[in-house]
Amino acid sequence: MADQYAQSSEDIRPTGIPAIPAIRWDDPPEGPVLVLLDQTRLPGEEIELVCTDAPALVEAIRTLAVRGAPLLGIAGAYGVALAAARGFDVDEAADALAGARPTAVNLAYGARRAQAAYRTAMAGGAGPERAAGAALEAARALHAEDAKASARMAAHGLALLDEMLPGGGHRILTHCNTGALVSGGEGTAFAVALRAHRAGSLRRLWVDETRPLLQGARLTAYEAARNGMAYTLLTDNAAGSLFAAGEVDAVLIGADRIAADGSVANKVGSYPLAVLARYHHVPFIVVAPVTTVDPETPDGASIEVEQRAGHEVTEVTAPHVPVIGMEAGGGIPVAPLGTQAYNPAFDVTPPELVTAIVTEEGVLSPVTAEGLAELCARSRQVTIG
Amino acid sequence: MADQYAQSSEDIRPTGIPAIPAIRWDDPPEGPVLVLLDQTRLPGEEIELVCTDAPALVEAIRTLAVRGAPLLGIAGAYGVALAAARGFDVDEAADALAGARPTAVNLAYGARRAQAAYRTAMAGGAGPERAAGAALEAARALHAEDAKASARMAAHGLALLDEMLPGGGHRILTHCNTGALVSGGEGTAFAVALRAHRAGSLRRLWVDETRPLLQGARLTAYEAARNGMAYTLLTDNAAGSLFAAGEVDAVLIGADRIAADGSVANKVGSYPLAVLARYHHVPFIVVAPVTTVDPETPDGASIEVEQRAGHEVTEVTAPHVPVIGMEAGGGIPVAPLGTQAYNPAFDVTPPELVTAIVTEEGVLSPVTAEGLAELCARSRQVTIG
Repeated sequence: MADQYAQSSEDIRPTGIPAIPAIRWDDPPEGPVLVLLDQTRLPGEEIELVCTDAPALVEAIRTLAVRGAPLLGIAGAYGVALAAARGFDVDEAADALAGARPTAVNLAYGARRAQAAYRTAMAGGAGPERAAGAALEAARALHAEDAKASARMAAHGLALLDEMLPGGGHRILTHCNTGALVSGGEGTAFAVALRAHRAGSLRRLWVDETRPLLQGARLTAYEAARNGMAYTLLTDNAAGSLFAAGEVDAVLIGADRIAADGSVANKVGSYPLAVLARYHHVPFIVVAPVTTVDPETPDGASIEVEQRAGHEVTEVTAPHVPVIGMEAGGGIPVAPLGTQAYNPAFDVTPPELVTAIVTEEGVLSPVTAEGLAELCARSRQVTIG
Repeated sequence: MADQYAQSSEDIRPTGIPAIPAIRWDDPPEGPVLVLLDQTRLPGEEIELVCTDAPALVEAIRTLAVRGAPLLGIAGAYGVALAAARGFDVDEAADALAGARPTAVNLAYGARRAQAAYRTAMAGGAGPERAAGAALEAARALHAEDAKASARMAAHGLALLDEMLPGGGHRILTHCNTGALVSGGEGTAFAVALRAHRAGSLRRLWVDETRPLLQGARLTAYEAARNGMAYTLLTDNAAGSLFAAGEVDAVLIGADRIAADGSVANKVGSYPLAVLARYHHVPFIVVAPVTTVDPETPDGASIEVEQRAGHEVTEVTAPHVPVIGMEAGGGIPVAPLGTQAYNPAFDVTPPELVTAIVTEEGVLSPVTAEGLAELCARSRQVTIG
């Protein structure tokens, strides 16, 4: 079975948003497919990756061709819709997708939402075809909601920045990638910086390169460049010098899971930034949709952190460059053969180090379990109402 | 002029110390040369770089073929001796070497020491040949002193660890590279960990990869593997997770310059570790010879921090791997073309975050200007006496 195949874009635009959206549903005569912008090829190439079934999408999620908390939710939902539309086992697909990356709560949320829509339709006697349509509708709804949520987070986030740091000229430090590449809209933390840029109040976006997979250097720099933002790249460990020099007004990051107590799991390297921010009295702001909050996870210690393969550290993985003597992981070996590596994909920042959580439903500051529960309740009211 | 040329080692040993010493003086019939282990090729290849004049050595220092505070001092002294032995302008060579890297105080110290020996001999009517001999003697003396200092730092450092953390089983986090590759002996911080390993009290050496140039992944992992130590590599930003999990008993690092107030300039990424260590109540220990203390630099703000080229960040530099489409910097581009980077080589840790400074003359804790001045005075007495 042709699960995944790549097709080149003939329309690589020099500026603006990517020519290829991060994710889109397509329905050619051969049958429905899920088309992804292959993020492992960026920034060098904009290439589409076409998934014809859920296992292909699971593989794309594991290799990070598609990544980022909100986008994973959308992908999970479309993946279930794809399985339904192609007549595969929907429950099996939902289980495989929900578990493809353990820390990202949105992924499971999206997969389960489309699965629930399918089941409800089937239980109502709809038959497989109309039930598949219901699953696709659920995915499309999530996609649209995420775009709306992104715009609202950006508005709330910029209002918070302007309130905390009156006078504009914001110098924002960000980590990993949280823009249009991870979202149905313009993203989470990056969307706030982008709105500040459009409002003329962004002085500088400091972009952490984000080892080991360099999502900051490869993807955030790519999005910042395409949007004409003033940005500067740095190694993750150079952030300390920036704080010490008073060059950072706020840290803005996304989240992969927020526990009920307000503990935030995000890309490894977020927690050291939170500690540095606290030491330097700089606001540390998390921007994430309400779906990132997981009431089932009581606290930070309960968050399962994905441990990834050591070769991501012992080798340097560059965006697909032909290298003579490339190793199994697709990278260039930098450490001696046989070197073991510790490679957690995420870390956990306790609520007392988080100045504010910005969601589409509003801003929570200080971060408390009660406040978080209230925000989630407000979100449910909106969804139901 | 054949300034530098490379020669391969035919004796790459699988374990133990490098087959090629980090630096050695040689005097073949063609005239004296300074032979370096080319550290840009490690861990993949052990290749000698032969310098026949001071400009070649300056170039080797700038490209980091030879690096590390104590070794730079030794290299600076030998470089002046080389200029003298080959009949070049000694003062010009000393100036060029002393300024090749602005932050490393040992480099200027070594160059000036050999220059002073040369001048004193000349002033005493020795003639250029005997004066060159005096410069070489000064370099050899510095080399031998550094080896002795390394052994004494290791002993003092392990005694401190055993006192602070009774019971052994030390889990030490280190940054950059501070072993035999930077020293006339076994190094600074690494020498302490190595002595703990030999004493059976090292449970784990956590090795920060140390972006952008990956000295931890390439060089410290190489030295740890050769010495049979239990070590694990991590990205710099994963250190936060280790601290949070209680997996670090002490941080041990070297220093490139210590100001009179006890502020420590060291490889970028040291300061964030100091902040994390303080937040987690973990000792942060600096290991450096007394020559690293610069009484002329009053405080941290007065330390000139070398800013290096942005391509070290926008490209990933792997140890000489043949890559199709390699960029000017010798690396693989990871960020979009035109991306600017902030790339300080060092950062500065204030004395209040340093638990102890371990020198060959003893341990200073707490770190105060008075204590540091006393240590330096003791060292001068020893040198004079």
